[in-house]
Amino acid sequence: MNIAVIGASGYTGLELVRILANHPHTTITCVTSERFAGQPLSNVFPSLAAFSDLRLESFDMSRVSPRADIVFTAVPHTEAMRIVPSLLQQGKRVIDLSADFRLSSKTTYEAWYGHQHTSPDILSAAVYGLSELNRSAIRRANLVANPGCYPTSIILPLMPLLKEGVLRTGTIIADSKSGVSGAGRALKTNSLFCEVSEGCSAYNVLQHRHQPEIEEQLSRIAGNPIKITFSPHLIPMNRGMLSTIYVTLRRSLTPVQIRDIFKKYYRRERFIRLLPDGVLPHTGRIRGSNFCDIGFVVKGTRLVLVSAIDNLVKGASGQAVQNMNIMLGYPEHTALDTIPLYP
Amino acid sequence: MNIAVIGASGYTGLELVRILANHPHTTITCVTSERFAGQPLSNVFPSLAAFSDLRLESFDMSRVSPRADIVFTAVPHTEAMRIVPSLLQQGKRVIDLSADFRLSSKTTYEAWYGHQHTSPDILSAAVYGLSELNRSAIRRANLVANPGCYPTSIILPLMPLLKEGVLRTGTIIADSKSGVSGAGRALKTNSLFCEVSEGCSAYNVLQHRHQPEIEEQLSRIAGNPIKITFSPHLIPMNRGMLSTIYVTLRRSLTPVQIRDIFKKYYRRERFIRLLPDGVLPHTGRIRGSNFCDIGFVVKGTRLVLVSAIDNLVKGASGQAVQNMNIMLGYPEHTALDTIPLYP
Amino acid sequence: MNIAVIGASGYTGLELVRILANHPHTTITCVTSERFAGQPLSNVFPSLAAFSDLRLESFDMSRVSPRADIVFTAVPHTEAMRIVPSLLQQGKRVIDLSADFRLSSKTTYEAWYGHQHTSPDILSAAVYGLSELNRSAIRRANLVANPGCYPTSIILPLMPLLKEGVLRTGTIIADSKSGVSGAGRALKTNSLFCEVSEGCSAYNVLQHRHQPEIEEQLSRIAGNPIKITFSPHLIPMNRGMLSTIYVTLRRSLTPVQIRDIFKKYYRRERFIRLLPDGVLPHTGRIRGSNFCDIGFVVKGTRLVLVSAIDNLVKGASGQAVQNMNIMLGYPEHTALDTIPLYP
Amino acid sequence: MNIAVIGASGYTGLELVRILANHPHTTITCVTSERFAGQPLSNVFPSLAAFSDLRLESFDMSRVSPRADIVFTAVPHTEAMRIVPSLLQQGKRVIDLSADFRLSSKTTYEAWYGHQHTSPDILSAAVYGLSELNRSAIRRANLVANPGCYPTSIILPLMPLLKEGVLRTGTIIADSKSGVSGAGRALKTNSLFCEVSEGCSAYNVLQHRHQPEIEEQLSRIAGNPIKITFSPHLIPMNRGMLSTIYVTLRRSLTPVQIRDIFKKYYRRERFIRLLPDGVLPHTGRIRGSNFCDIGFVVKGTRLVLVSAIDNLVKGASGQAVQNMNIMLGYPEHTALDTIPLYP
Repeated sequence: MNIAVIGASGYTGLELVRILANHPHTTITCVTSERFAGQPLSNVFPSLAAFSDLRLESFDMSRVSPRADIVFTAVPHTEAMRIVPSLLQQGKRVIDLSADFRLSSKTTYEAWYGHQHTSPDILSAAVYGLSELNRSAIRRANLVANPGCYPTSIILPLMPLLKEGVLRTGTIIADSKSGVSGAGRALKTNSLFCEVSEGCSAYNVLQHRHQPEIEEQLSRIAGNPIKITFSPHLIPMNRGMLSTIYVTLRRSLTPVQIRDIFKKYYRRERFIRLLPDGVLPHTGRIRGSNFCDIGFVVKGTRLVLVSAIDNLVKGASGQAVQNMNIMLGYPEHTALDTIPLYP
Repeated sequence: MNIAVIGASGYTGLELVRILANHPHTTITCVTSERFAGQPLSNVFPSLAAFSDLRLESFDMSRVSPRADIVFTAVPHTEAMRIVPSLLQQGKRVIDLSADFRLSSKTTYEAWYGHQHTSPDILSAAVYGLSELNRSAIRRANLVANPGCYPTSIILPLMPLLKEGVLRTGTIIADSKSGVSGAGRALKTNSLFCEVSEGCSAYNVLQHRHQPEIEEQLSRIAGNPIKITFSPHLIPMNRGMLSTIYVTLRRSLTPVQIRDIFKKYYRRERFIRLLPDGVLPHTGRIRGSNFCDIGFVVKGTRLVLVSAIDNLVKGASGQAVQNMNIMLGYPEHTALDTIPLYP
Repeated sequence: MNIAVIGASGYTGLELVRILANHPHTTITCVTSERFAGQPLSNVFPSLAAFSDLRLESFDMSRVSPRADIVFTAVPHTEAMRIVPSLLQQGKRVIDLSADFRLSSKTTYEAWYGHQHTSPDILSAAVYGLSELNRSAIRRANLVANPGCYPTSIILPLMPLLKEGVLRTGTIIADSKSGVSGAGRALKTNSLFCEVSEGCSAYNVLQHRHQPEIEEQLSRIAGNPIKITFSPHLIPMNRGMLSTIYVTLRRSLTPVQIRDIFKKYYRRERFIRLLPDGVLPHTGRIRGSNFCDIGFVVKGTRLVLVSAIDNLVKGASGQAVQNMNIMLGYPEHTALDTIPLYP
Repeated sequence: MNIAVIGASGYTGLELVRILANHPHTTITCVTSERFAGQPLSNVFPSLAAFSDLRLESFDMSRVSPRADIVFTAVPHTEAMRIVPSLLQQGKRVIDLSADFRLSSKTTYEAWYGHQHTSPDILSAAVYGLSELNRSAIRRANLVANPGCYPTSIILPLMPLLKEGVLRTGTIIADSKSGVSGAGRALKTNSLFCEVSEGCSAYNVLQHRHQPEIEEQLSRIAGNPIKITFSPHLIPMNRGMLSTIYVTLRRSLTPVQIRDIFKKYYRRERFIRLLPDGVLPHTGRIRGSNFCDIGFVVKGTRLVLVSAIDNLVKGASGQAVQNMNIMLGYPEHTALDTIPLYP
């Protein structure tokens, strides 16, 4: 299969290239970047030297279309909605890493993102690409809306408990800690080394754009509307996201009972690792991998869930490749079966 | 006034020496360390070169007593309870930075710390040294139990709201993120650079020893028993602690109303900085200082409080000096009125 | 004395404000920034909250001049040369932290900086502000060219040896490692957290703009032209600079003889700490302070010198205040006598 | 082929497991650790969960021998010399990651390591495992002494130039910067997060144990005795090593001429990347990979070489696997052909 990566000069684009290099059945034929068009990709990312002789080009539908079967769009939101419709019209299957097709409602999108949504007609065609949740729909999808990193880290530990109906759904709180690569490679004062190193801060508490995405998916899973309290934090590391989630059980459950619920849904999931009793996740142990590690502590009806993902892998490009594998019928872990890099 | 620092070879001991060097009315006459006895303090901490010609000595009551008016005990828990009673008998005023005298109940101490408490008779004499809370009792105290870092960062933002009675007290959740210096200078695998750097982890969720300390103080302030959910996290930075606290208001309050409550209690507090609307704390902005920065976001009855302290200053040695200033009648900010080191 | 800081929204500007807050004889009356004019300084740097109610203003000579006796210019090179001449004409004494007046030769400046020098007539009036080297000239100067951070860390350990004539001067090599704050707060991809963290790189080897500055000063000290090999490196920390300097002795010297040479020149220097035998500098031990720590290893005629400074203090704003103290006849360590922040 | 890893609870042991998991022709059958014997390997290193169900065992020759064709010894020096002789007697081929067999001279070893060498008779049988240097000898070796990380990063850039005889060999200086994982997982104060983070220091200047190893190999390559000046530094990152090497050319060479020399020797080397003109190595770009990136700057007869490796991969376990591939006749890049993890 031939692959195009639209927007290959950001961290998620680089990560797609890194992961797909291990894929036996796909070839990247086209990488685009408006800013670096004309340059070898390995100039922009010297880590790729000796691996890739791809050259970045400006996006041009007539040039991309004949060379790609599958297209990953790793562009900022608002840009994806301009490009994706015509890619679909050309018969391409698209995995979009932006936020443009994650929310099913135009109104909600516009309220949280502050822009008009110019392709509302294809919102309903998009499948939310949380692989473990929507596997069968992803298989048939022409447009996969790849989840945000925060939603991935928060929905995965909640899903089995919501499906089993053991949670009081009115009081869910998610406190997430993210590495800096989640902010991308754009030039922002808040992403400067000296502003981040040796510091920890909360930002966009109760108003982060991933909140409606989380709420929509949790509501769907539970079958009734759920509102959550969501607080993202920035911490001084490149990669990694830890989410600590506070929920209330309808009635007391033992650790064994909770573990059984997780096993029921995740026993066969290659990328979910339920940690042993007494062990809580550490982002260092999933670095560079597609794993979501989950641990928990329970006391009476108070349950604290902790999850860890690599925001660039399971939180972005790894899950995108996982979705591609599902769409194309390859074993789901193809190119993704790597041991985390530790330390 | 002459000062002795018992246990001067750890980070809190060093920090006491650093801060007291700026104090115009005190002189450190004696520093002890069992491990490094005989060595110049500046050998153990080369940052002190050219400032201190103190030499570490083994603790010996008969040698310490004649040279000190005030004694800071910066030793591990269980050691403080062995030393402090005799210091008090010698007529010394003691500020203890260990956990040994923070809990009023022998039973609670023994349940959480797993050791017998050998000096239960003086527990009732100890004043909990959260300066802003117990100022007048501290003034007269002979034994101040200096608060833990987590409790300081959690109680300070809650105190005004509890005193005003605007919180539902059954659902308080505190999610704290700490720099590594809180673990001290002891040799532990979890404190190694490679185990911490580029990583984030939760630990001791629902079972950290600071939890009963927080609960006792909050209960006292509120006038009724409070249990909280407390989750500490380790993040890759030297200094700093950020606590994100989730509370439910009895009824909706506007940001202005909440701000007014904070102002009522903290307007004249030199070390509490209530941040402007829309600004949330960042540990980088309080590094090396005795400040506790507080910010919040409110929506309906959901209130999220965020506080930032330097765990070694307001969370330990800085507050200890603040307490000493109160005890001795010096202006409270003496030696502590320094601008944070940023970046 | 009234102080103006021109260019107060960068890290060196902030550091001047932080240090001068401790100065008993000066008041900052004016801070300027073109980008943030109109904003409170504490908005740009929240660490200053509760310390400063200064408001940034656009630079306007007629407004600055009546309010300042001493002016620090902390603006980028090329901007300083536009502003400084008129400040001098207004009778102000100026301490310039840019590179514009550090080189005595217009030709050399233009060759290395690639811009025309528009104020060559005052180059000869500028005194190179390495405090320990030029103290008496600084005392009388109206314009002090504050040294670069690399030159400070390299010239200080070499100066006594060059003055004593014990070095072969043809083979000096300086390998310097700098924290990221040296690059300032400007938005550059290379200063992003993710580009720096967990990485180490060399840059501008043999072509860094500080090289001619170092060579000019070393040549002056030695009394004959010296060319050096200079390699700067970027390492993942906020503050700090370590320079490892490789020199060849004319004839073998013992450690004691070398130590005696250093003592001859630096015995009374408050900010030079010659480390004990066997101890080499560590930037953590000078963080936030005006110290230059120096250590060395010698074997035959091979001498390796190692120095450590805080690039924002002794490498910039601290030395600027030291120079101001010299100019105004205050004790040289006023506002600078602080213990490093460790850890 | 069956593999045993003796000493699997350190970072280099873990890294061997991580890399060999990708190897199609080998199976790890046995992992040992005295400290953690009896525990699952994934308890000690949770990053391995879901990949390895190996259990650590105490080393016992009679149990290891029947299960392994190739043995990696990743134990501290002095332990290797106790184990390796009997492994060889059992007919095993051994790749030793310790320092015990890197020096050909018992006397030199004992002078630098301060211990008696108890297996001097097999020193001459050991092949120094710098793959690019000794490929044909490695192929036939029964005992490969895997090089130190510093020597690998220093010898590789020097080798072509020495072979071509273009260097004055009396003045070679190597200034190396290492991440902290090089110090291993042992509990040392200097490896604590708070002692390393935000700091940079030189250590063991002119007396590091890797110095005689470097000198022996350089001397062999050049065909005459070479002494170097070597200064290691510790910087705050997990992985990575940057060496800046200062050499003098016998006569001026152009960048093209130097590049041609490198190409002559390294054109077909998969793991040596000669960077384009004007680009210098950055450890971030080789993280997690077996690459050695090399760049240089030349001016007259002054040549500055810069190399970057991942100290745990090309500097230890990656090169060990590369050597195993050579010994067993597999393609040399088997299990090692991975794109660096960036950021």
